[in-house]
Amino acid sequence: MSTIKLFEKPLGMRDTFPQTYEKLEAIRAQGRHFLYARGYDFIKTPSVEYYDTVGKASAIPDASLFKLVDNQGNLLVLRPDMTTPIARIATAKLLKEKIPQRLAYFASVFRAQQTEGGRPAEFEQMGVELIGDSSVFADAEVIITAIQLLQQLKIKAFTITIGHARVLQAILQQYTMNDEQMHALRQLLVERNYVGFEETVVSFNLPQENSDILLQFIEEAMNVKSVLTIEKYVVNANELTYMYELEQLLKQANLMDYITFDFTIASHMNYYTGMLFEVFAAGSGFPLGNGGRYDGLLAHFGSEVGATGFGLRVDRLLEIIPTSDSMVVTTLLLFEPTLYSEALQRAVNLRADGRRVTMQVMNDLTNIAAYQRQFSEVIYVQEEEQQ
Amino acid sequence: MSTIKLFEKPLGMRDTFPQTYEKLEAIRAQGRHFLYARGYDFIKTPSVEYYDTVGKASAIPDASLFKLVDNQGNLLVLRPDMTTPIARIATAKLLKEKIPQRLAYFASVFRAQQTEGGRPAEFEQMGVELIGDSSVFADAEVIITAIQLLQQLKIKAFTITIGHARVLQAILQQYTMNDEQMHALRQLLVERNYVGFEETVVSFNLPQENSDILLQFIEEAMNVKSVLTIEKYVVNANELTYMYELEQLLKQANLMDYITFDFTIASHMNYYTGMLFEVFAAGSGFPLGNGGRYDGLLAHFGSEVGATGFGLRVDRLLEIIPTSDSMVVTTLLLFEPTLYSEALQRAVNLRADGRRVTMQVMNDLTNIAAYQRQFSEVIYVQEEEQQ
Repeated sequence: MSTIKLFEKPLGMRDTFPQTYEKLEAIRAQGRHFLYARGYDFIKTPSVEYYDTVGKASAIPDASLFKLVDNQGNLLVLRPDMTTPIARIATAKLLKEKIPQRLAYFASVFRAQQTEGGRPAEFEQMGVELIGDSSVFADAEVIITAIQLLQQLKIKAFTITIGHARVLQAILQQYTMNDEQMHALRQLLVERNYVGFEETVVSFNLPQENSDILLQFIEEAMNVKSVLTIEKYVVNANELTYMYELEQLLKQANLMDYITFDFTIASHMNYYTGMLFEVFAAGSGFPLGNGGRYDGLLAHFGSEVGATGFGLRVDRLLEIIPTSDSMVVTTLLLFEPTLYSEALQRAVNLRADGRRVTMQVMNDLTNIAAYQRQFSEVIYVQEEEQQ
Repeated sequence: MSTIKLFEKPLGMRDTFPQTYEKLEAIRAQGRHFLYARGYDFIKTPSVEYYDTVGKASAIPDASLFKLVDNQGNLLVLRPDMTTPIARIATAKLLKEKIPQRLAYFASVFRAQQTEGGRPAEFEQMGVELIGDSSVFADAEVIITAIQLLQQLKIKAFTITIGHARVLQAILQQYTMNDEQMHALRQLLVERNYVGFEETVVSFNLPQENSDILLQFIEEAMNVKSVLTIEKYVVNANELTYMYELEQLLKQANLMDYITFDFTIASHMNYYTGMLFEVFAAGSGFPLGNGGRYDGLLAHFGSEVGATGFGLRVDRLLEIIPTSDSMVVTTLLLFEPTLYSEALQRAVNLRADGRRVTMQVMNDLTNIAAYQRQFSEVIYVQEEEQQ
């Protein structure tokens, strides 16, 4: 333990300095206003939950959970995502009867890191959950809200890539010989390892037709502009109809420029049961966020209602939203000790004009010149006034 | 572990439902604007820190720390206060040269609870730290900022009670026979156990004069309107002069109505070295917050500068700030599936007028009447328009 230096933080933990903080606040304020105006109610859940309730139900791997033990000997976790705590809260008495619920959050989530390497162990997510509406309109609303929120935040170039958890699952099941093969192929798609997918399909020695269909599917189902393109692969016609309806709704919202369909998308979040999507922005190597329908998760908490939602990674938004060049105008009011009343009154007047004012007594400054350089304006309050 | 129910949260952990969340946001927004306008820069620190850096340096008892172990075997803590992480960050390279620093925060802190009983294990604090200014003007600024922030938040009846850590310490030291007696008396004052203090003084069998002075001090030093009242007890004249100067500055700010001096105040936060204060509001049994000068804490992080600051307990502010009666006006736009375009356009128009609008398809609602009751207005978008 003696190797820890005084200024060090745990692996993946970061400080947020003033300039970044202001950028974060701007995202927060805009996001809050935007989602609130759309009828989403903001809630907050504790940072610490029971492992047995939220820890196990979340789709985050066990090794990424921060675990701790409380005074009663119960195993706790720092919340690894927000969807699971919201599923817990949504099934609680207070909200249960107000179905459908529209809930929103802006919160830190925690993922333990194994190695140094830049991935944050704590980061903020902003998102919504629409609970208790199983219609395609709910899925359309969630996707439209994600797109318009990104527009609101002035993210210029981004794409929403939409897939379907069960459509993919059914195709993989249909053309492989057993669950083991199906899971192996699915995992390769979670990792976006398409070369690995093709090699593995070949290695399975499936009937020629099956093998051909899987290889053709992986080529053709990526980046399609309309869901009907993949009609020939689809096993369950209802799910294709659902996705076709979703496409029609998104067309009516005039947002197809932002949308492609990709039926090879598989999420490491294994609670998705229906449509799912990922948000990618130009200039960001990782998804900005993701979402989808997770009808099973609420059943885990004893409530048989459908749910859909999305979450954006605020840390990644921060990276791609340009920092404003405009320096914050802060006035420094440097006063002599004998003129405290005058300085106080001066500050009141300047702040009433909307100015940001720092008051500072002159005496104690070791390096006045260096200190003053941080301010856009300096006003001296001294016996012989000089500006 | 099987005794944990699905909906339970760990001891002292709480959910924040929409109505409380909005109140919390109002406090947050007002506080941020107020402190920012006074030149305080907001920062954020990680929720998790090393036990050896922040855990040990904080004044929170070990049994109240949430401890965890990282993948490297290091002992970590959930941050128990904000002053210690800010002391760490303030001594880091990026901020070190900008002395004096004015830093502000709005953050959750964590305190493990031993029993059921209503004390929160996670709560928000809002506060400032003024680092690198050892003058009495810095202490005056911090007290004035606390008072004006409370005024801004429309807290009506509150008192700031100001004491001095070293004045008390010196008096206790002067009139007891050893450190053990001094610590015992100090601890009774931390617990505000004045009867115990008197009984213990008597039990020590001190010289009559010492005993008399201590008993008289405890009567007289509480709730004084001017620091000179306690002149006869004070051991170090410099510290009294300092407090007298502070009193004069607070008089110039016209805030003496909110202030009393109490030189019997002893804090469980043992890092205070100079003036310290507590905020009490009518209607709240616990302090709303506290503050003081802690010149030693930065030395722990290798920086020999003075610092002063305060923190308010946002959870306690929430309890005493009245909830607004005015119902949030939310319009429900109930639409038929076939009229999606029309509904979308209608929502755009209403939101452009500044209205909060929830869109909801009619079909899936199990209980339309109950659902509608949550809204202040319902607009139907259906084939035969009816309002």
